[in-house]
Amino acid sequence: MAKILLLNGPNLNLLGNRNQDVYGSNTLADIERSVSDLLQRHQIQTEAYQSNHEGQLIDRLHKANQKCSGVILNPGAFTHTSVALRDAVEAIDIPVIEVHLSNIHNREPFRHQSYIAPVAAGQIIGLGPTSYLAAAYSLIQIIQKRGES
Amino acid sequence: MAKILLLNGPNLNLLGNRNQDVYGSNTLADIERSVSDLLQRHQIQTEAYQSNHEGQLIDRLHKANQKCSGVILNPGAFTHTSVALRDAVEAIDIPVIEVHLSNIHNREPFRHQSYIAPVAAGQIIGLGPTSYLAAAYSLIQIIQKRGES
Amino acid sequence: MAKILLLNGPNLNLLGNRNQDVYGSNTLADIERSVSDLLQRHQIQTEAYQSNHEGQLIDRLHKANQKCSGVILNPGAFTHTSVALRDAVEAIDIPVIEVHLSNIHNREPFRHQSYIAPVAAGQIIGLGPTSYLAAAYSLIQIIQKRGES
Amino acid sequence: MAKILLLNGPNLNLLGNRNQDVYGSNTLADIERSVSDLLQRHQIQTEAYQSNHEGQLIDRLHKANQKCSGVILNPGAFTHTSVALRDAVEAIDIPVIEVHLSNIHNREPFRHQSYIAPVAAGQIIGLGPTSYLAAAYSLIQIIQKRGES
Amino acid sequence: MAKILLLNGPNLNLLGNRNQDVYGSNTLADIERSVSDLLQRHQIQTEAYQSNHEGQLIDRLHKANQKCSGVILNPGAFTHTSVALRDAVEAIDIPVIEVHLSNIHNREPFRHQSYIAPVAAGQIIGLGPTSYLAAAYSLIQIIQKRGES
Amino acid sequence: MAKILLLNGPNLNLLGNRNQDVYGSNTLADIERSVSDLLQRHQIQTEAYQSNHEGQLIDRLHKANQKCSGVILNPGAFTHTSVALRDAVEAIDIPVIEVHLSNIHNREPFRHQSYIAPVAAGQIIGLGPTSYLAAAYSLIQIIQKRGES
Amino acid sequence: MAKILLLNGPNLNLLGNRNQDVYGSNTLADIERSVSDLLQRHQIQTEAYQSNHEGQLIDRLHKANQKCSGVILNPGAFTHTSVALRDAVEAIDIPVIEVHLSNIHNREPFRHQSYIAPVAAGQIIGLGPTSYLAAAYSLIQIIQKRGES
Amino acid sequence: MAKILLLNGPNLNLLGNRNQDVYGSNTLADIERSVSDLLQRHQIQTEAYQSNHEGQLIDRLHKANQKCSGVILNPGAFTHTSVALRDAVEAIDIPVIEVHLSNIHNREPFRHQSYIAPVAAGQIIGLGPTSYLAAAYSLIQIIQKRGES
Amino acid sequence: MAKILLLNGPNLNLLGNRNQDVYGSNTLADIERSVSDLLQRHQIQTEAYQSNHEGQLIDRLHKANQKCSGVILNPGAFTHTSVALRDAVEAIDIPVIEVHLSNIHNREPFRHQSYIAPVAAGQIIGLGPTSYLAAAYSLIQIIQKRGES
Amino acid sequence: MAKILLLNGPNLNLLGNRNQDVYGSNTLADIERSVSDLLQRHQIQTEAYQSNHEGQLIDRLHKANQKCSGVILNPGAFTHTSVALRDAVEAIDIPVIEVHLSNIHNREPFRHQSYIAPVAAGQIIGLGPTSYLAAAYSLIQIIQKRGES
Amino acid sequence: MAKILLLNGPNLNLLGNRNQDVYGSNTLADIERSVSDLLQRHQIQTEAYQSNHEGQLIDRLHKANQKCSGVILNPGAFTHTSVALRDAVEAIDIPVIEVHLSNIHNREPFRHQSYIAPVAAGQIIGLGPTSYLAAAYSLIQIIQKRGES
Amino acid sequence: MAKILLLNGPNLNLLGNRNQDVYGSNTLADIERSVSDLLQRHQIQTEAYQSNHEGQLIDRLHKANQKCSGVILNPGAFTHTSVALRDAVEAIDIPVIEVHLSNIHNREPFRHQSYIAPVAAGQIIGLGPTSYLAAAYSLIQIIQKRGES
Repeated sequence: MAKILLLNGPNLNLLGNRNQDVYGSNTLADIERSVSDLLQRHQIQTEAYQSNHEGQLIDRLHKANQKCSGVILNPGAFTHTSVALRDAVEAIDIPVIEVHLSNIHNREPFRHQSYIAPVAAGQIIGLGPTSYLAAAYSLIQIIQKRGES
Repeated sequence: MAKILLLNGPNLNLLGNRNQDVYGSNTLADIERSVSDLLQRHQIQTEAYQSNHEGQLIDRLHKANQKCSGVILNPGAFTHTSVALRDAVEAIDIPVIEVHLSNIHNREPFRHQSYIAPVAAGQIIGLGPTSYLAAAYSLIQIIQKRGES
Repeated sequence: MAKILLLNGPNLNLLGNRNQDVYGSNTLADIERSVSDLLQRHQIQTEAYQSNHEGQLIDRLHKANQKCSGVILNPGAFTHTSVALRDAVEAIDIPVIEVHLSNIHNREPFRHQSYIAPVAAGQIIGLGPTSYLAAAYSLIQIIQKRGES
Repeated sequence: MAKILLLNGPNLNLLGNRNQDVYGSNTLADIERSVSDLLQRHQIQTEAYQSNHEGQLIDRLHKANQKCSGVILNPGAFTHTSVALRDAVEAIDIPVIEVHLSNIHNREPFRHQSYIAPVAAGQIIGLGPTSYLAAAYSLIQIIQKRGES
Repeated sequence: MAKILLLNGPNLNLLGNRNQDVYGSNTLADIERSVSDLLQRHQIQTEAYQSNHEGQLIDRLHKANQKCSGVILNPGAFTHTSVALRDAVEAIDIPVIEVHLSNIHNREPFRHQSYIAPVAAGQIIGLGPTSYLAAAYSLIQIIQKRGES
Repeated sequence: MAKILLLNGPNLNLLGNRNQDVYGSNTLADIERSVSDLLQRHQIQTEAYQSNHEGQLIDRLHKANQKCSGVILNPGAFTHTSVALRDAVEAIDIPVIEVHLSNIHNREPFRHQSYIAPVAAGQIIGLGPTSYLAAAYSLIQIIQKRGES
Repeated sequence: MAKILLLNGPNLNLLGNRNQDVYGSNTLADIERSVSDLLQRHQIQTEAYQSNHEGQLIDRLHKANQKCSGVILNPGAFTHTSVALRDAVEAIDIPVIEVHLSNIHNREPFRHQSYIAPVAAGQIIGLGPTSYLAAAYSLIQIIQKRGES
Repeated sequence: MAKILLLNGPNLNLLGNRNQDVYGSNTLADIERSVSDLLQRHQIQTEAYQSNHEGQLIDRLHKANQKCSGVILNPGAFTHTSVALRDAVEAIDIPVIEVHLSNIHNREPFRHQSYIAPVAAGQIIGLGPTSYLAAAYSLIQIIQKRGES
Repeated sequence: MAKILLLNGPNLNLLGNRNQDVYGSNTLADIERSVSDLLQRHQIQTEAYQSNHEGQLIDRLHKANQKCSGVILNPGAFTHTSVALRDAVEAIDIPVIEVHLSNIHNREPFRHQSYIAPVAAGQIIGLGPTSYLAAAYSLIQIIQKRGES
Repeated sequence: MAKILLLNGPNLNLLGNRNQDVYGSNTLADIERSVSDLLQRHQIQTEAYQSNHEGQLIDRLHKANQKCSGVILNPGAFTHTSVALRDAVEAIDIPVIEVHLSNIHNREPFRHQSYIAPVAAGQIIGLGPTSYLAAAYSLIQIIQKRGES
Repeated sequence: MAKILLLNGPNLNLLGNRNQDVYGSNTLADIERSVSDLLQRHQIQTEAYQSNHEGQLIDRLHKANQKCSGVILNPGAFTHTSVALRDAVEAIDIPVIEVHLSNIHNREPFRHQSYIAPVAAGQIIGLGPTSYLAAAYSLIQIIQKRGES
Repeated sequence: MAKILLLNGPNLNLLGNRNQDVYGSNTLADIERSVSDLLQRHQIQTEAYQSNHEGQLIDRLHKANQKCSGVILNPGAFTHTSVALRDAVEAIDIPVIEVHLSNIHNREPFRHQSYIAPVAAGQIIGLGPTSYLAAAYSLIQIIQKRGES
């Protein structure tokens, strides 16, 4: 049975409690559940993990390469600063889709640039929790296409 | 019955014939058909239009505001140069999701910036024809959520 | 009888319907009427035209050179992106006054720069519909001064 | 009876004597008189002041807030360097219209930027002494509109 | 019989009438005739077209791919602003030589950059009408070399 | 009998031996011969010189002013770094056409800028050895036009 | 009894041992003691923590939100690079005062910018250990003012 | 008896009357009084001065060098534009602490840079009137430390 | 008898007392005396003036135009910030030589740029008090040359 | 017996498995062994450590200061982003040589800049595993030279 | 017997006599001797050459391609300005290792960039004469590895 | 008897023949003679040299260190591009005064920057041949001052 890693970066553990006008009222648990539901309907397992530690996110990506078929990654603030995370994404073979709840392009200028995007399989932003669902939907398409060929 | 405008910008009429390593082998007609199929399964009509003329894209967006529930917009090269198209997207009330077949962030630097993104409801890039499908999927979610509330 | 071309660029057809906090509640027809009224009181005819197509604005400027004594031009978003429009303004002999309803200098940075301004006879911004009237007032002064000399 | 402050910055006392190809042959007294004439025809008094001292211009703006209905301000070279003058314009409640005789956008690059413009009610440039008259005309419109409401 | 498209962009219809110190006294018809004469001496047909509309230039380039062996393109002001035109040049298979009458590198800084140049077969600038002739001469060389191989 | 200086800068002596994918397989001698052949057919003599020493190129340009009717100059890497060479080109009276084998605008960013171009009579790039021939062709035109007048 | 978190970032554990000309001769323990003494005199408890791990500083800030009334934060080198730390500061409700021992504005340019400052309640720099005391003094003021209202 | 100069720059005379959301409701007199009270409790005299004239602030700093033990300086808008004021601060021997009521780092970009900061003894920002008190508190520490040694 | 204005800007009144490693041990009076001595030997009078007020320096330059044959100007910190002073230098007819005691090009980057230099007759820097003497020597040459012709 | 710390940063644990065209086919264990062999031949012990966690690298550098005579540091992606690591390198007394397997100057622009280099004893790049060996060789030289003096 | 070219650029002939705090007390002859000694121990000959003339360094590199197995190149100041030298390094087939005595990254900003580095086999900096020895050591490794395969 | 080296860079051999509006009508020989005359009157010998070769200028500066008491250097175009020349100026012990005939600050932007200025004893620009004389005058002062002490 295929597995998808749902990986969330720094401060996303606070989701739903703060900055609701930017990030909405869903908690991270809400999002993890709805992604997991969608994937399960297509016989795909979900492994969810959140950390405020860059090193732990990198370690986790390295490990996912062995056991998962794809990654939904919200790198949070590391999007704009972490070349190490970028290198980890680039180093692994499975498709990584970068997602953001908010529209990073109408926030502060330093949030417009993503170190992850150029090495990600794709990027989905601005749609709130739907960003995660659209990423899950896209990974399903990719996995199905592989199954066909 | 709800309707979605599927609007494609300059040079996308050539899709499938050229630059296959960047844009893939699907023609624009292929993409329009698969989007239309997905939407139809959710009782949503598709109106597809492509133009190499900035003014015609703007005129079309103005008109869509009256008759459509959302727009899937691939602005092509206008992404990086057209403030007029941006203003049209900003001026209308319906959600516009910007899509790109290729990953604009690992191409030439001038393609990294989108005038449209900051005023779009969301942006989906790099997933090939799946970018369009994920946008359609997202608009379905948005329309359904509205129907519920 | 002298004639003035009142030329409006992209999205200005939507005036009065949207973004009222930025552009005010006057429609383009309201503005065209009040400019026409002021000019008529000084025996000057008004020819009003709006288009979302850059090429049509350029064509119109070329033609105005034969038949008009001056131009009031609100280039809309083309202000910031169109060197072609700038070249058309520079190529014709009659005075062109650039106007903007809003104060472009307290909006997004990319709106601070005008390709048109350096080749225009003058620039009037930020005064709402009064920008147009002050431009008309100024063209009247210029035409009267010529008549005297 | 309403009063308008006509405030001119550094080196404008030399007007008409030097750099005639840039600034024209009118003296500052000529300009002050023609503005005063126009305003007087609409029952508005003119208070004219020029200084090469940034501090005196700021002091004068502070005082104008109590006694005047609007300001026509040509900040001269302070346009491009004085945040203090900008703060004074922003701090007072009456409308300030920034004017320039020359077209600052086709001169040296450092003259293209105005610290005053983003906080002014409007900006009128490049029309020679007509810039002042168009500003006076615009303030008359603004004052009349207030009177009506 | 081979055919060359001679494509001219915005404001080039005014050639010979204005800005003679920058662009010289030849009209566009003069240039089209001398290019056509040179090509005819080598049994190559000329198809000449000018437009102020970016979309029409793109449409024309798309069509040329089927019927022509090469393009002499003076993109006018679109040189510096149109990624869409660049994409059209890049998308077609036939060689496109970019030409400019004036030396774009000793004019305003924004004219120093060409979006077209990096995807053109070559660029010839600054030689007045001879720029067009040298481009025609070069295309003849290219076509002859192909004929040989 | 008129004479043209064909001047080549640093590393062009290696032509045909290395970097064949960028510069082609022609040696410098091949190019010098084909330029010389073309010019001879129009009764113009060719003087060919190559050096890796900036000072020698400058000395040579100074001398050409007395004895030659024009220069075909490929400044090689000095294009991007030598103000001294630029000043030499600017100081002499005869037309200098700058040529490049490769398309400098799709190589490293520092090769996009030419110190020579703004003071050259024209610039021809990207056409391989044809760049030299088109320059020779253009100088023939210029010399013939002078002969006529 | 109110509590203040005194949070120190990377390399501040070395304080007093190295770079004494930049950071002075006080150890981190010295500073923690003097802050603790000052706060205790106003019945406020101090919780001191230092880490070289960005993730641990973020975790600690999240927890402080529940138990503390304010934070004195010396982010060390993370000041200039950590958007994640910034987001943590922004996400919590209690006032965070950023402090620096040295004057970051007369050191290397990359130290002039602080990601933390724009979201901090205030910033105090350059006063050596007094920076910490002035921050403690300021938090006392803020807490007292709240107590009053 | 030691004396501290409390020096305020342009537009700070308007404090409490305008822009209350940025600068708070305290008048300059309120602030001067509370600083004076704090210093008096430590046997230090306060000399307060405000001016909109850069030259007068410089003159005052020169004089303070003879008679004062330190300066609390809010340079207002001169913070961002006055190298002359910076040079005066650098030239005198007594410690100058730069203060700002607002957080200059979350306002317009041109307010992020301070010419004064690199030569000041320290900088305290964003804490409202508490910025002044924390500066006074810090100067007391510095003066006491000197007294001890 | 010819007269030269020796005009010194902000903080130069402190010369000889402070920053002796940058500006040397001469007082301003020392420098004024040695310049005056040199000029007197060539029958030229010296008028010396120093001010920390930009407006007073401008006023003085305006007046010098009537009574003096040249100006030696050390604008101090206004060199780098005052467009108003530049405009005054540009507006007057007599030659102004800009001088600096220190070598502004090996100090802070913001001191490398001079607003005055482009409109001055010449610039002499880095030679300590000899900068002033060399300027006086140069003005003597200029005045003598005029006397001859 | 002297000891050298061989410290490797993020993603270097993947060496030899991925991106072989950039980093070669050697595993990290291979490199650690060959460095250890070379050092052992000169009676120097090797302590090898790799981590994806910035904080752990900093902790390790702090500790090395007590027990080691030098460090060979490949900071991986932290090279370009970690001021904290730089501060750790700068804070310790033993020589740190920065190494890179690949030539960071012909990769993406953000890899051209190293925060570590300015505070390292030296930098060796682009030579593959030989970069490490040359660093070891250099540290041997440095340790021997100390031994001699 | 293999040969290595040891090539030194401008001003390196002065080594040991001047700027000893930056470049150390070794003369160029000292360095050449110690490199030669090391290479001789591995049966490799050394050819040493220094010049202040860019053209001579280029000529020498061209010739080395025939006769040498590698180059140790200290380009001196040409590092930062010479694209011509870069092109020569890129054009030849033998490995070129760039060396610098000083750490170019903690000197003036214009010394941080190397035109040579991106096309060199490797770069070794900051280790004084050991930089040369480490380069020699590395070339030995490279030559031995080739011999093995 | 003291000697001064008068060193002129590229294209200055053409002086008086070309670009007379920029550089005046004096030949280099004229300037060399008038400098020599002035120095001779103070018992100082002049050694004049001009070259278009950067390497020869560097060689000459190295030699001057032994035999001369100072240098008057007009580096011509090398001013803006030659770090090698800068290093030579910095390496020698005798004072070097940089001179320019024209005012480099009101010419093209790339001429505003001098690599030489930060390491020169002083810089004198814009005064035509008087720039050289003022430099000679200044070196006389410096030599006399040394003689006195």
